[in-house]
Amino acid sequence: MPVVVRNTPRTDLAVVDALGAAGTATVHEAQGRTGLLHHRLRPIYTPARVAGNALTCTVAPGDNWTLHVAVEQAQPGDLLVVTPTSPCDDGYLGDLLAESLRAHGVRGLVIDAGVRDVQTLTEMGFPVWAKTISAQGTVKETPGDCQVPIVIAGVHVRPGDVIVADDDGVVCVRREDAGAVLASAQEREANETSKRARLAAGELGLDIYSMRERLAEKGLRYVDFPEGS
Amino acid sequence: MPVVVRNTPRTDLAVVDALGAAGTATVHEAQGRTGLLHHRLRPIYTPARVAGNALTCTVAPGDNWTLHVAVEQAQPGDLLVVTPTSPCDDGYLGDLLAESLRAHGVRGLVIDAGVRDVQTLTEMGFPVWAKTISAQGTVKETPGDCQVPIVIAGVHVRPGDVIVADDDGVVCVRREDAGAVLASAQEREANETSKRARLAAGELGLDIYSMRERLAEKGLRYVDFPEGS
Amino acid sequence: MPVVVRNTPRTDLAVVDALGAAGTATVHEAQGRTGLLHHRLRPIYTPARVAGNALTCTVAPGDNWTLHVAVEQAQPGDLLVVTPTSPCDDGYLGDLLAESLRAHGVRGLVIDAGVRDVQTLTEMGFPVWAKTISAQGTVKETPGDCQVPIVIAGVHVRPGDVIVADDDGVVCVRREDAGAVLASAQEREANETSKRARLAAGELGLDIYSMRERLAEKGLRYVDFPEGS
Amino acid sequence: MPVVVRNTPRTDLAVVDALGAAGTATVHEAQGRTGLLHHRLRPIYTPARVAGNALTCTVAPGDNWTLHVAVEQAQPGDLLVVTPTSPCDDGYLGDLLAESLRAHGVRGLVIDAGVRDVQTLTEMGFPVWAKTISAQGTVKETPGDCQVPIVIAGVHVRPGDVIVADDDGVVCVRREDAGAVLASAQEREANETSKRARLAAGELGLDIYSMRERLAEKGLRYVDFPEGS
Amino acid sequence: MPVVVRNTPRTDLAVVDALGAAGTATVHEAQGRTGLLHHRLRPIYTPARVAGNALTCTVAPGDNWTLHVAVEQAQPGDLLVVTPTSPCDDGYLGDLLAESLRAHGVRGLVIDAGVRDVQTLTEMGFPVWAKTISAQGTVKETPGDCQVPIVIAGVHVRPGDVIVADDDGVVCVRREDAGAVLASAQEREANETSKRARLAAGELGLDIYSMRERLAEKGLRYVDFPEGS
Amino acid sequence: MPVVVRNTPRTDLAVVDALGAAGTATVHEAQGRTGLLHHRLRPIYTPARVAGNALTCTVAPGDNWTLHVAVEQAQPGDLLVVTPTSPCDDGYLGDLLAESLRAHGVRGLVIDAGVRDVQTLTEMGFPVWAKTISAQGTVKETPGDCQVPIVIAGVHVRPGDVIVADDDGVVCVRREDAGAVLASAQEREANETSKRARLAAGELGLDIYSMRERLAEKGLRYVDFPEGS
Repeated sequence: MPVVVRNTPRTDLAVVDALGAAGTATVHEAQGRTGLLHHRLRPIYTPARVAGNALTCTVAPGDNWTLHVAVEQAQPGDLLVVTPTSPCDDGYLGDLLAESLRAHGVRGLVIDAGVRDVQTLTEMGFPVWAKTISAQGTVKETPGDCQVPIVIAGVHVRPGDVIVADDDGVVCVRREDAGAVLASAQEREANETSKRARLAAGELGLDIYSMRERLAEKGLRYVDFPEGS
Repeated sequence: MPVVVRNTPRTDLAVVDALGAAGTATVHEAQGRTGLLHHRLRPIYTPARVAGNALTCTVAPGDNWTLHVAVEQAQPGDLLVVTPTSPCDDGYLGDLLAESLRAHGVRGLVIDAGVRDVQTLTEMGFPVWAKTISAQGTVKETPGDCQVPIVIAGVHVRPGDVIVADDDGVVCVRREDAGAVLASAQEREANETSKRARLAAGELGLDIYSMRERLAEKGLRYVDFPEGS
Repeated sequence: MPVVVRNTPRTDLAVVDALGAAGTATVHEAQGRTGLLHHRLRPIYTPARVAGNALTCTVAPGDNWTLHVAVEQAQPGDLLVVTPTSPCDDGYLGDLLAESLRAHGVRGLVIDAGVRDVQTLTEMGFPVWAKTISAQGTVKETPGDCQVPIVIAGVHVRPGDVIVADDDGVVCVRREDAGAVLASAQEREANETSKRARLAAGELGLDIYSMRERLAEKGLRYVDFPEGS
Repeated sequence: MPVVVRNTPRTDLAVVDALGAAGTATVHEAQGRTGLLHHRLRPIYTPARVAGNALTCTVAPGDNWTLHVAVEQAQPGDLLVVTPTSPCDDGYLGDLLAESLRAHGVRGLVIDAGVRDVQTLTEMGFPVWAKTISAQGTVKETPGDCQVPIVIAGVHVRPGDVIVADDDGVVCVRREDAGAVLASAQEREANETSKRARLAAGELGLDIYSMRERLAEKGLRYVDFPEGS
Repeated sequence: MPVVVRNTPRTDLAVVDALGAAGTATVHEAQGRTGLLHHRLRPIYTPARVAGNALTCTVAPGDNWTLHVAVEQAQPGDLLVVTPTSPCDDGYLGDLLAESLRAHGVRGLVIDAGVRDVQTLTEMGFPVWAKTISAQGTVKETPGDCQVPIVIAGVHVRPGDVIVADDDGVVCVRREDAGAVLASAQEREANETSKRARLAAGELGLDIYSMRERLAEKGLRYVDFPEGS
Repeated sequence: MPVVVRNTPRTDLAVVDALGAAGTATVHEAQGRTGLLHHRLRPIYTPARVAGNALTCTVAPGDNWTLHVAVEQAQPGDLLVVTPTSPCDDGYLGDLLAESLRAHGVRGLVIDAGVRDVQTLTEMGFPVWAKTISAQGTVKETPGDCQVPIVIAGVHVRPGDVIVADDDGVVCVRREDAGAVLASAQEREANETSKRARLAAGELGLDIYSMRERLAEKGLRYVDFPEGS
């Protein structure tokens, strides 16, 4: 039987926003290369960047009824995260639902299915990461669950986990790990700035990262053309 | 043996243009969620929107000869609709053919295969919905049919049926249904305008569409966290 | 054992640049419709156009160590060409490596795998043709080969072969053929300019290319509607 | 609104059975290489071969309700042909429905979606051509149409058209063409028998089909190694 | 840092075996159509059927080192369940590892990647559900986790959850639900036996399941040919 | 212009046959995990195993003319290796061509496209590795090349290179490396036999391969449940 869970926990929006500023790739590295949703989820327009508290729901194939239920559970700073119960490419969200989500403070949508009205969504600046774009409409016959743990695009997401999404894709940070991941991400960013300057000046990563000895141990040989051709 | 059918019927361009203004998603809904081409067909640039009378042809895999035959049959307001006789990703259309099509009044191309010269096509503003982009050239050895009923991307399209294409995809309206579908589409648009204002003001779809009772009948329960987690 | 080949041949940059000006589709035609990489390789932003000497390397799945080795072998005018030893979609290149490549004169990247930091790469104007975009990071445990002949996306590429890439895709010209292919490409371009003017004026390809007789031999018949419907 | 069409025409089973004996590839050739369903439809077990009158229906994604409606319309010699209204991989048919179909004389199933209980279906000898195998169940909320013209896997199929399916795939013959296609198919088979004997004896197709002159006209050259390497 | 969790809970093998006897499709239905792994996982030979306690691990792309770690954690009745940290098709398991797994009581393998030595695995009767078959070998450089919760093919699986796999695919039952799901599955099986007999006797599902009234409410109409064609 | 190269070198059939006995996975490992064709090429029936000298050709999309040319170049012990000039799934080979190939000593076919008549090919025992099965026929308008170096499924293959194919896939061994690869493969096989016995007796790979210390260096930790859950 379908269920809606109320009063789920959320992550502090200050942390959420700081993770969003770090971006998907940095956050993914900062938590040990975990939590990345499958790259089949792409933004419908670029550039796009957002972070929010996961507002989760499941939907039946070809049936977007649960999205209306989700709007009622929304709080400002949420990001709607939707997974179908079996693979489906239909257009679950259009501009009316986006208008309704925005009115309740929802910052965007991550869905492992399709969306439509993408020109209007682009004009509205409502960011969406989706598997595809399809004008195919949906019915309202079979409600799914709202604010329960879900698996989307290979990742386990619970209500109030942090979702960071940008042009590189979508990553999930568990709400209990958000603070530590943020600290690690900011440390990485600081470190990258200095590295970037050295690389731009022509220094080799082979030297900066002291790779030469280990490469030799792995057997890397240098030969002259045409020997290796 | 390949055949070209002359003097095929067409739909009144006033109706065609009004359907184009409604857009793919609205037209698709207005005719009962039918007629949508598979969403693998995507515009080569966005935003893009066009409607036209289907000028149909079939092509052999890797062979674009029929496109030259199709130009001769074109009339202003046509949209070229091309399906290969077996799946193929080659680049059937380049900028020269686009120039020729435009000179004969053709408004764009829908093809379940590839195209090339996309930078020039974009600069020309010649809209194309295609399965892929590929520089792979084609030969001229095997003519196909022109202005016959075809199946493209899962939809049966006849010469003079109306094709509406935009950033959401491509839909076909049968020429005998065009007037009724247009009326229905315009009714939907009027209805959506008022709904959109209410949703933007924060009203819930659950209330606007009176969904609560039916959801309860389907067994939807509300519980408090952590019970549902 | 992994190997780096030094002092590999390169093609004269004047020829490289002229091939780049001709573009992928024209070069592909000019060398007899050969050398085109599979169209799954797409630019991460458009418009994009570049040509360069192939700086080749292979990488293990999920391991970008070899890219650091490749930087050391780079010369101005090179284009990095990377193929994984088994299919992989991970994000092999980020903005730091791009900065390093650019510092050594590398003009862009062609990779049959994923990249990340695409917003920064776009802002930098560092062109990339890739199979996908993915934030998934990589390790540095298994070095591959650098400046050896490779197969990428269906094409055999050797160090110093010319790579031309634009919005239509990527094509490889063998270094010993570069001059002849350039001559042929420039001849095609001259010929297309006059054809384009005639087509824009409404002349039919059927007449310009004298296709009618051959179409009749192939059995093409013209009938009137409704006979062929 | 969903519709069931009663008293649709059917093709004489003697013709149907003879087309089935010829097989998919021969029938496809005999009608000019048309009518072949996309090869993503594969038999769930091999060898399998069947022919029947198309008993058509459409189904909503994730909803197999219409299949129960179809059983009521079945006549001995029918083959159930099912297409979803948007792409779906769910398991629409299981062993109970197969039992019911068989009890009403249906010879098998062609579906552009998934099926389940395949071990039992195999033991029953109930042949199925499907896009995939999936245990994912379906609901019964949205009825589709039954015995209307449909498009399945790229082909327009009407009730009573002949469907021939074997290990090579599935082909549709229009009911008005069935007799002529059968005659052509049987002629091809007779011709192939003699050709096969000559080829088995070592005669070259180049000679049997007199290809040498035309190949030379196309520019085919013979050279000696290593010139062409 | 990679981790191995020892002394994880397991489900009683009597329950495991009874769920295995019910099969994937029945178990999937019995737990409310949840827990089904994506159907891209297919058995390497058929018929195949197995159930076991999930022995979970993650693997780096192109790196099967963790499988050797998993063998040490195996107990009789386990089923090895493996997910790569990014999508990979390499052949992670060959006959030697299968021999080792079998020696420690492991009943089979479910992997969202590739395997090799499939002829030997078939002769051994060691059942495998995999995404693909590939001879591509792997390295041993980057260990993953063993006996931790994982997501595989869209489903969250914990050590000791029950995995049921057969020709229809793979389903996961949470260990705390195993008893209740078994009871429900056995009830379904009893019910299906009687239904199957009635359907085989020609009774219509429309009548057995009392569907006619609800279909009429949904608007289903019966018309006579040619009206609906 | 299309070309046929005569008198190409071949590898000694004793070496070819011994490599075939070793099988794809072993040969692939023995030459340093190189030369494996993409795993999309699958046998049309299993079990299947063959090795032969590559008899190479290219074919235009939807055009199998070159296969007739290839038959004339065949020698006993050859294996026909065919790649299309752009991706194509059509059924290039049927039973008549297989009969002709067999009459000239060709042992089987590897093709990065489709084949048909698979039931007859199976009955004949003519092994084929293909991308797909499709009844779609082809034309004879555009000849390709025969006995030239080609790229097929990601691998560079020259006439007379050794092709080994079995249920695990297809691998290519360069003709100049065949002897050395064979020696290495046979050494691997001898080594595997003893390892297999130890693993079957329950010894752990962790101990046989002395992996524990290196795993610890990589940071692998053992913890007790529920700590790691």
